Amino acid sequence: MATRITILGASGSVGSAVADVVAAHPDRFEVEAVIGGRDARALAAVALRLRARLAVLADGEGGPALAEALAGSGIASAAGETAVLEAVDRECDLVVAAIAGTAGLRPTHRALRAGRRIALANKECLVTAGHVFMRDAARAGATVLPLDSEHNALFQALGNATVEDVEAMTLTASGGPFRDWPAQAIAEATPEQALKHPNWSMGAKITVDSAGLMNKGLELIEAHHLFGLPAARLRAVVHPQSIVHGIVHFRDGSLAAGLAMPDMRVPVAHCLAWPERLDMAVPRLDLAAMGCLTFAEPDTARFPALRLAREALEQGGAAPTVLNAANEVAVEAFLAGRIRFGDIARLVEAVCTHEGGGPAPAEIDEALAVDLAARERTRAYLRQSY
Amino acid sequence: MATRITILGASGSVGSAVADVVAAHPDRFEVEAVIGGRDARALAAVALRLRARLAVLADGEGGPALAEALAGSGIASAAGETAVLEAVDRECDLVVAAIAGTAGLRPTHRALRAGRRIALANKECLVTAGHVFMRDAARAGATVLPLDSEHNALFQALGNATVEDVEAMTLTASGGPFRDWPAQAIAEATPEQALKHPNWSMGAKITVDSAGLMNKGLELIEAHHLFGLPAARLRAVVHPQSIVHGIVHFRDGSLAAGLAMPDMRVPVAHCLAWPERLDMAVPRLDLAAMGCLTFAEPDTARFPALRLAREALEQGGAAPTVLNAANEVAVEAFLAGRIRFGDIARLVEAVCTHEGGGPAPAEIDEALAVDLAARERTRAYLRQSY
Repeated sequence: MATRITILGASGSVGSAVADVVAAHPDRFEVEAVIGGRDARALAAVALRLRARLAVLADGEGGPALAEALAGSGIASAAGETAVLEAVDRECDLVVAAIAGTAGLRPTHRALRAGRRIALANKECLVTAGHVFMRDAARAGATVLPLDSEHNALFQALGNATVEDVEAMTLTASGGPFRDWPAQAIAEATPEQALKHPNWSMGAKITVDSAGLMNKGLELIEAHHLFGLPAARLRAVVHPQSIVHGIVHFRDGSLAAGLAMPDMRVPVAHCLAWPERLDMAVPRLDLAAMGCLTFAEPDTARFPALRLAREALEQGGAAPTVLNAANEVAVEAFLAGRIRFGDIARLVEAVCTHEGGGPAPAEIDEALAVDLAARERTRAYLRQSY
Repeated sequence: MATRITILGASGSVGSAVADVVAAHPDRFEVEAVIGGRDARALAAVALRLRARLAVLADGEGGPALAEALAGSGIASAAGETAVLEAVDRECDLVVAAIAGTAGLRPTHRALRAGRRIALANKECLVTAGHVFMRDAARAGATVLPLDSEHNALFQALGNATVEDVEAMTLTASGGPFRDWPAQAIAEATPEQALKHPNWSMGAKITVDSAGLMNKGLELIEAHHLFGLPAARLRAVVHPQSIVHGIVHFRDGSLAAGLAMPDMRVPVAHCLAWPERLDMAVPRLDLAAMGCLTFAEPDTARFPALRLAREALEQGGAAPTVLNAANEVAVEAFLAGRIRFGDIARLVEAVCTHEGGGPAPAEIDEALAVDLAARERTRAYLRQSY
């Protein structure tokens, strides 16, 4: 029996890895719906490639362009936020949640509340509303499969061990393009420099997050929700080769590590086929040819974003939601040339210090309200100080 | 409920790690019987330390000394081969099979035929009579838990994945004391030099095997039987730090690795508590402090023993049994100063070339007969050529 899949964020960077895996196994998967943001042409291309039954654009204004691009294909199309939620309601076996940003919260939550299996790539679901997601996944009996390479590696390494046997988990960070840069040079780095990630090709926002290690900090928060470990038992280590993605430390001194070449198709293949596995024609790891895997403590003096994220995780409540919102606004301002790279963490820290004290959002609406307020406050800081 | 354990080889190197783990968890384990080879005093010490119900020495002549050492302790004692087998017959939850050499075959096989769970450290069971052991384990429903650090790591990394999903397995080798030595120096190495293992403290025979990579070759043969993979899907890689012990390569491009500090108490703790885990006060791995893990192809020109073992595995039948017997005699001759280090592999190759062609032993007696004949033949070669 083929697995029926709906892909939220089908035309993004993760979505394209999903499309590659699905297209390579036409007998194993059929695609119920593909959902995109604003790019009608890109979404239509994915829909045609995967022979989806339905394609939906979140941006209502793009509907006509999408319909035109799919005319005569037999693929239904729709547009707008309501159409996205209706698409999520359609029966399927697995929902890939790969919409970037807080736009992913409502559709992902809706799929999860319906008890569907979710391959989760969207960071904001767990960072912004982790309590809501994990609580409602448990209530609905929804299985959450982590699609991020690090969390997927941890999930695989954990196997069916219980979290009581886990002493700690380590997520690796490539260290990004500024890994060996002095603090002053990092502070003054340009968007062009920040966007040169050594190992991964990703969207601009996450690439900037990786350059400052905020991405790893957000992943610690995600890991906390996914695996139920407190901040003190979650670690990050710099590993420039991006081969070891996650390590589970058991209480008896054994460790299990998840490894793979840095290729998003690998965790995608794992989630799509779970609990089975696919044959994947991806490059194989050759440790002897590689020669050396290196590891180092992250330097939170040069990369304060990691410290900020850890503090938000330790503080709990609304702090991670505020951190994420402030960071997103700050990164936008950096990419727009309004602030320097070093200002991102400075701005996030200022906002978190003054705005991060509320309780954890108990519903998606609450999380989005906290997020919105924090964004507005961050923009106010931006106007005041830059 | 405490786990009741019988320890075959209680006074050896692995046995002492077992004793450490048991002694650290007096509420979790009780010891039914401890079985030793010839050292009555060492066995009595273990029996007293672990409050075993029974201590048995394989060497019948040591019986009185053992009885004397245990007088007044309330611990029963016995001696001789029959007493060993009777000890194995006593009810228990787990038998640790840590007798070195072919002496381990009969008692381990007897425990396994009784359907007991076996923590297997004895290499010869699988190298010399792998077909018999795995066939009879399946028939009796006995669980075989690999206690060697490499196989234990592979067992843990495999989790409950099926072998159909496994493309390959990699066992790591420290490379031993001669890792960077030129071929000529290795050929002329002394026993003293061969016994300086960089990471592990083990018996003399296995330490010499490690120095020439024969140990890794024997472990490939063990892995073949334990996990059901053919030779072509079993790999060895040199990893001097001995932190990554085994790697499972899945067919979808994911890999799972088992890691631990090089400390036998870690795999012992895993086997003793399986499927649960113990709290173990052992040194923790700190990858950042370690900095670098290195990997290299093994050099079979300088370490021909690895090639010989692989050839025996590929040939199958009685070849591994003959290889192991020839190697044991050759290592004895080396340790006795009769031959040079380089002669070990030369002697093994000569014997294997001429004697390795029979079918796989179908019973333990057959395996022991093939083993004995190969030893005699090797001694004959020794007399002729050295």
